[in-house]
Amino acid sequence: LNIAVLPGDGIGPEIVEQAKKVLDAVFAKKGHEAIYTEALVGATAIDKTGNPYPDETHELCMKSDAVLFGAIGDPKYDNDPKAKVRPEQGLLAMRKKLGLYANIRPVATFPSLLHKSPLRADLVEGADFVAIRELTGGIYFGRPQGRSEDGQTAYDTSVYTTEEIERITRLAFDFAMKRRKKLTVVDKANVLATSRLWRETVQSIAPDYPEVEVEYMFVDNAAMQLIQWPKRFDVMVTENMFGDILTDEASVITGSLGLLPSASIGLHTSVFEPIHGSYPQAAGKNIANPLATILSGALMLESAFELKEEAQMIRKAVDASLEQGKVTEDLDKENAISTSEVGDWIAE
Amino acid sequence: LNIAVLPGDGIGPEIVEQAKKVLDAVFAKKGHEAIYTEALVGATAIDKTGNPYPDETHELCMKSDAVLFGAIGDPKYDNDPKAKVRPEQGLLAMRKKLGLYANIRPVATFPSLLHKSPLRADLVEGADFVAIRELTGGIYFGRPQGRSEDGQTAYDTSVYTTEEIERITRLAFDFAMKRRKKLTVVDKANVLATSRLWRETVQSIAPDYPEVEVEYMFVDNAAMQLIQWPKRFDVMVTENMFGDILTDEASVITGSLGLLPSASIGLHTSVFEPIHGSYPQAAGKNIANPLATILSGALMLESAFELKEEAQMIRKAVDASLEQGKVTEDLDKENAISTSEVGDWIAE
Ligand SMILES: CC(C)[C@H](C(=O)O)[C@@H](O)C(=O)O
Ligand SMILES: CC(C)[C@H](C(=O)O)[C@@H](O)C(=O)O
Repeated sequence: LNIAVLPGDGIGPEIVEQAKKVLDAVFAKKGHEAIYTEALVGATAIDKTGNPYPDETHELCMKSDAVLFGAIGDPKYDNDPKAKVRPEQGLLAMRKKLGLYANIRPVATFPSLLHKSPLRADLVEGADFVAIRELTGGIYFGRPQGRSEDGQTAYDTSVYTTEEIERITRLAFDFAMKRRKKLTVVDKANVLATSRLWRETVQSIAPDYPEVEVEYMFVDNAAMQLIQWPKRFDVMVTENMFGDILTDEASVITGSLGLLPSASIGLHTSVFEPIHGSYPQAAGKNIANPLATILSGALMLESAFELKEEAQMIRKAVDASLEQGKVTEDLDKENAISTSEVGDWIAE
Repeated sequence: LNIAVLPGDGIGPEIVEQAKKVLDAVFAKKGHEAIYTEALVGATAIDKTGNPYPDETHELCMKSDAVLFGAIGDPKYDNDPKAKVRPEQGLLAMRKKLGLYANIRPVATFPSLLHKSPLRADLVEGADFVAIRELTGGIYFGRPQGRSEDGQTAYDTSVYTTEEIERITRLAFDFAMKRRKKLTVVDKANVLATSRLWRETVQSIAPDYPEVEVEYMFVDNAAMQLIQWPKRFDVMVTENMFGDILTDEASVITGSLGLLPSASIGLHTSVFEPIHGSYPQAAGKNIANPLATILSGALMLESAFELKEEAQMIRKAVDASLEQGKVTEDLDKENAISTSEVGDWIAE
């Protein structure tokens, strides 16, 4: 198994280390061999090479079967919209160059964490859905983008092609077929031309999946329903910008942000990473919660290598660590153990 | 007081009637005279004239000191993205032609409704902020918008000018000055050129309001913080599309969606309307909650006519109706009274 490892910034290195530790334990037990190769990304990469997604990193990713990613972002680049090179550009470049067209975020509740949810427990208990965000199109990459000559007008362009929409729509239907067979397509078809193309394209593909119930929902309504009735969702699919907002909204409703993994499915390889950010205040302190990264490792085994049993072993060990309170301070201030201790316990 | 009345679709007519009833009671007591003139808008207007915002309606609004608006939307236009004329076009035309550049939504908690909130009571209790959405710019109105010749590519354009951003930013600072002096500017400056112009423009205006603490927040983060920590907000300002999503998200966190009024401040006149929709299933049944519309009337007295005391009279009567359980079935299934009875009670 050829795995590229991109620890990135902030707590990235320490949480990725725990994920490798846990993967190694599973590989040893099941007789797999993994080759990990590390590379730079984000602020760390800017500091060392001037480029947040250096060419060597890209070449490594292209040759790998999967990429294990930590987090990027450094406060020194915040509040400075004019900084010429920014860590996020590395992320966007990586998405585009690796063709990472679909970001998959399973949203699940953990019984022992329900009290952490900002929502009433009865509303979230048992919520279980997958949010799928298109990741290489829309207003993130559409051109023209910029300023008028006098600097007084700025513009961005959102663009989608039928092909881009079809690709992610089929992926979403496939997910729905493996689950409760319900697909919610989120758009703003009452205002946007791109949304109308999304809706038409989905409508033209739906007959290929007669068992799946499809519903269309405006993005403003979806932002409400996610909070009011999260259990109604099974698979949700949407365009890049709406997905940025809604998947982050979805990630906090269950109280388990520190545990949620994600997969970015690509044309050349796929990237697995925790949903949370680089949490710079905690960097180097051995206090960050490594579970989302460890679970991203499980998602990688399942999605990139079809190692279902191995993935399940990791998930069981994570559940056990939660049940037995072997957790970092974000989950239990009083009896917390450290990042590396959680990694050790789960690997063990 | 010259008031244009646009009841619109669904429950619009019956809730607007209650607001007029309550306004009349206040006017009678305080010796004001109001002239109400009704006009068509929305699906009702399409049915009768083919146009969701007829010219006569526009002329009436232009001559009025304020517009009292019900709701628009009819299920027969849903799921039909290709319908040539749609009620929403009337809404967008009205916003553009009246120059309604700022939509103001005060988000407040009502102690007797906290149990209706999907959030834990301790998180929302006392939440009190104003969400301000730019309403005539961005991707809603930017051009070009449409399809490529082969129909395989669709595009939308988001455009903002410094002038548009300045206008709403100053309004937001003015609100902050009258409140807790904290302004949160929501954008996506790490991706969008329009957001970078927003941020620069706000930064250039901020020195005029040295007492106001300004913070910049990415829209994905704002979608999370609204749920995790709603009390942190005082005044929030953002562009049109982000505002559409975030203000709807904000409207459900307190459990009082049926009670929230809004004001759309315009260059020519201002429009006051409930946040909720046309609720077609309830139309004509005398069961819809009229409080958001009645409170929109209060907001109108205060904002358009500077009748603060009169606005306060209405708010007190609404509070009393809640305390004494004189409410519609959405708030109390067992002891509910009807829409018109709530209107009568509050007017009385
Ligand atoms: C950092 C930023 C460009 C990025 C995005 O908007 O896609 C982030 O918010 C995310 O969701 O991964
Ligand atoms: C109906 C629609 C066009 C409208 C909008 O998106 O502005 C609505 O959602 C609103 O917020 O008033």
